Amino acid sequence: MEHRIRNSFLRSRVMSADEAQEWIRDGMTVGVSGFTRCGDVKAVPRALVNNIRKTGDLRRIHLYSGASLGEADSWLSSNHLVDRRSPYQSDPETRKSINRGEIRYIEQHLSHTAESFRDGNVGPIDLAIVEAVAITEDGGIIPTTSVGNSPLFVQQAKQVIVEINLSMPESLIGIHDIYLPERRPFRSPIDIRQVDDLIGYHYIPCDPEKIIGIVITDEPDSPSRMIPPDEETQQMAGYILELLEHEVRHGRLTDKLAPLQSGVGSVANAVFSGLEQSPFNQLEIYTEVMQDSVFHLFDSGKVAFASGCSFSLSQRMRDHVLSSLPQYRNQIVLRPQEISNHPEVIRRLGVIAMNAALEIDIYGNVNSTHVLGTHMMNGIGGSGDFARNAGLTIFVTKSTAKNGKVSSIVPFVSHVDHTEHDVDILVTEQGIADLRGLSPRERAKVIIENLSHPFYKDALRDYFQRASVQGGHTPHLLEEALSWHRQFKEAGDMRKLEPSVL
Amino acid sequence: MEHRIRNSFLRSRVMSADEAQEWIRDGMTVGVSGFTRCGDVKAVPRALVNNIRKTGDLRRIHLYSGASLGEADSWLSSNHLVDRRSPYQSDPETRKSINRGEIRYIEQHLSHTAESFRDGNVGPIDLAIVEAVAITEDGGIIPTTSVGNSPLFVQQAKQVIVEINLSMPESLIGIHDIYLPERRPFRSPIDIRQVDDLIGYHYIPCDPEKIIGIVITDEPDSPSRMIPPDEETQQMAGYILELLEHEVRHGRLTDKLAPLQSGVGSVANAVFSGLEQSPFNQLEIYTEVMQDSVFHLFDSGKVAFASGCSFSLSQRMRDHVLSSLPQYRNQIVLRPQEISNHPEVIRRLGVIAMNAALEIDIYGNVNSTHVLGTHMMNGIGGSGDFARNAGLTIFVTKSTAKNGKVSSIVPFVSHVDHTEHDVDILVTEQGIADLRGLSPRERAKVIIENLSHPFYKDALRDYFQRASVQGGHTPHLLEEALSWHRQFKEAGDMRKLEPSVL
Ligand SMILES: CC(C)(COP(=O)(O)OP(=O)(O)OC[C@H]1O[C@@H](n2cnc3c(N)ncnc32)[C@H](O)[C@@H]1OP(=O)(O)O)[C@@H](O)C(=O)NCCC(=O)NCCS
Ligand SMILES: CC(C)(COP(=O)(O)OP(=O)(O)OC[C@H]1O[C@@H](n2cnc3c(N)ncnc32)[C@H](O)[C@@H]1OP(=O)(O)O)[C@@H](O)C(=O)NCCC(=O)NCCS
Repeated sequence: MEHRIRNSFLRSRVMSADEAQEWIRDGMTVGVSGFTRCGDVKAVPRALVNNIRKTGDLRRIHLYSGASLGEADSWLSSNHLVDRRSPYQSDPETRKSINRGEIRYIEQHLSHTAESFRDGNVGPIDLAIVEAVAITEDGGIIPTTSVGNSPLFVQQAKQVIVEINLSMPESLIGIHDIYLPERRPFRSPIDIRQVDDLIGYHYIPCDPEKIIGIVITDEPDSPSRMIPPDEETQQMAGYILELLEHEVRHGRLTDKLAPLQSGVGSVANAVFSGLEQSPFNQLEIYTEVMQDSVFHLFDSGKVAFASGCSFSLSQRMRDHVLSSLPQYRNQIVLRPQEISNHPEVIRRLGVIAMNAALEIDIYGNVNSTHVLGTHMMNGIGGSGDFARNAGLTIFVTKSTAKNGKVSSIVPFVSHVDHTEHDVDILVTEQGIADLRGLSPRERAKVIIENLSHPFYKDALRDYFQRASVQGGHTPHLLEEALSWHRQFKEAGDMRKLEPSVL
Repeated sequence: MEHRIRNSFLRSRVMSADEAQEWIRDGMTVGVSGFTRCGDVKAVPRALVNNIRKTGDLRRIHLYSGASLGEADSWLSSNHLVDRRSPYQSDPETRKSINRGEIRYIEQHLSHTAESFRDGNVGPIDLAIVEAVAITEDGGIIPTTSVGNSPLFVQQAKQVIVEINLSMPESLIGIHDIYLPERRPFRSPIDIRQVDDLIGYHYIPCDPEKIIGIVITDEPDSPSRMIPPDEETQQMAGYILELLEHEVRHGRLTDKLAPLQSGVGSVANAVFSGLEQSPFNQLEIYTEVMQDSVFHLFDSGKVAFASGCSFSLSQRMRDHVLSSLPQYRNQIVLRPQEISNHPEVIRRLGVIAMNAALEIDIYGNVNSTHVLGTHMMNGIGGSGDFARNAGLTIFVTKSTAKNGKVSSIVPFVSHVDHTEHDVDILVTEQGIADLRGLSPRERAKVIIENLSHPFYKDALRDYFQRASVQGGHTPHLLEEALSWHRQFKEAGDMRKLEPSVL
């Protein structure tokens, strides 16, 4: 235990999870570690739920995290312990409660959360609970497989509880680079000029006095829910790889490309797999989340360096990575999400951003979050941080969903997360649309022709054609704009659409 | 003329506007100076139009600018000379052509345009035409009352034409700070930490060989089309000033506030006028455009420094400012719009952003551009650069338009320019809504109760209440969401709305 808690005074603060959960009071604002089910707190939330189940003494909290937690999101939500939740989740139970209006969910751009606490626009944070590999002599907290918002939570919280996770190897020490921008108005530039620039500490500085409890656990992260690539995601990846080669041929990129970002999902994984056989070399990654494919790329010698704020790995890859860290150590860094997603850095580096959409409209607006405009899927996450600031912004979606009953290319998106100004390239399994420099009417043509499913193409053409006759910079038929969604809601199938009649 | 053209070789390049316009060929991409009708090129576009009227020899161009031009936008559009137009305009003739689909208009975030040329995503630029006070010994071009995108156009263009405007006093020399970020991947931080940090040259560097023509003019800028504040804009300004005092009381701001940005418009002017009598001091401005009110604030000793990329002044204020520049010189800087609007700097400084909306919806999404979702008003301009990255983001709109026939608070905006994630505070003449930390359903309540016009309040409540019953994180009734706009389109009046019946 001396290794893991190097400050001898703090060793007296070790307690059981059951004791630690007592610190959580009704109405508290609690900031927890955890991002894409990695590095999340595990023992204390479980103890809290067990305690409440036993005693019936309900305590509802305002729960802030990096992004999605592992099982904790599900336990806390299904036991009605979450009053507010922010900034991101991807848990089926939480989703249900959000859509019933029981959990007040505030999705945020993932680079914004830290700033809003720092400015006092939300908060204050009563309690931070963070997972750690170890605590340094000075109370410094060394995170595990994600950094997320933990540095900010620890800095701002009145009290801190640490879960020391013994299943996390000490070889994780040194892969983090913890830097937080100063409170304004006296802030310096974030001096990251290349993806491998290190600018901070390898631990989260923390006054030991604030650490009121330390819980020892050994529970591993929940494995990622990665869906393996299918034929369609392979096709989409193929279009993106062709595009990148095209950009190199036209001198807009070198064969190092530009730092790559990819959202979670199977297309991103497929693109990265495709890079293994590509002509590109010495690739760099500046992303939020490192999935399995990043490590495959390391193993094939294609990647020089990867920067993220979290892992998101299958069980098998996790075991491999955690046991081989010395091999990867000099090529990886985990940063706070405020830094991995910071507009300043993303823009400076000219990142190539690849994220997934639920639906897109004929003008290139993107819905990443709301099914039928009303029901939350996950949240906007970091997609906006990257899409707005990247050098090249790509969104991918299959052209249909729900076995073809839904067209993911619609006349008018039922919810907007990213406007057409932030979208350069769109990809479906049908093809690719390069929207750079095009006006809305031009965008509509290429989106409909290149991306839509053959089954829906005529209806989209018909909509656009009739709308264009009515005029306007961005032609629409107000009475039909949302009729495709209505149709699906009422009949469970957009294919029943009768153009010009609805 | 030695003062104005200090490079003796270049004096041989002086020519008439009529000679200069010959350089403009059909199909060319032309980048011109001009921003909010200031510092725009005047003589060459006029000569082009006259020539084409005379000869019938139509030449259609791709026209890129900083933002809106003065009369040139109108001449060029009404004579069908503009094929593509980007990134912003606010001219009635141009607007008509855009909405008829004749001009292919690509609105962009104003900080994005330079980047998209630099990356080669659009372009190349065949010809830059920029207005200048003078040309230095080395060919350096000293801009006039706006900087806009001129530095980038001059840098990237194959050929450059300069309009030396003798009505622009030489005392303008020294108020510009010209800095362009490097081409990626080797880019440094933009080292502006305080609004008055100067990081560049006071001229646009230019190889004299590229300057193929110099035209001498003396035409003043078109005055701004400022609408004087009325009772309602005064009220809105009052709410904003109260909010700022409230922020100071709660320790979130000091009485210096934070650097202020304001979009063009009468509310912004009214807020700034209100600041003259406020308890705030040593104010700083980091904005796109400096309107009359900025100079009133200087005169009342309230402002320490103002940074922008353009002026936008009434005729009277313009005459005053241009004749009193030595007095303001140390307190003003004009920068390229890529810098005035850069996410990196806006975020670092924690700007307070105030911009106007056409309509907002009950969840806080903002439409700044499209009337009834289809017809372009001006363009997104810099509003997104500021809204996304500011420390505090405010949007203002009157609660109704068209003499009450339109509610500017609607169930569902007919077009999204800014999503609810980028909106902290909304203001109408009815009141103010502080949305920080609120979930969508909470936002809806405060928006409807605080901001909507009494005439429409019940209908909005009714919509929200019935939508909430149907559920979802962001409740909507798809069949009614756009019915208010339809109603206006069909009947010319939203007041004919019959809730629950449509
Ligand atoms: C948009 C997003 C949900 C897509 O995820 P994905 O796993 O690639 O998408 P899938 O195609 O598997 O679809 C997920 C679900 O949405 C449904 N769906 C997809 N498109 C749909 C549409 N147009 N309409 C309705 N439902 C749709 C699918 O049927 C599936 O439903 P199921 O879970 O009931 O089977 C996901 O990328 C996301 O949450 N993005 C926002 C955050 C983000 O971008 N983060 C990364 C930033 S770094
Ligand atoms: C949104 C914007 C048009 C508002 O400008 P404004 O001068 O304050 O607005 P007004 O209230 O005078 O309205 C302008 C016109 O839109 C109309 N209008 C306003 N709200 C409307 C609505 N909800 N529906 C339909 N029309 C509406 C007005 O009637 C008026 O029409 P008119 O010219 O025929 O009389 C303007 O701020 C803009 O172009 N913004 C986008 C760019 C930007 O924000 N730039 C600054 C960034 S630094």
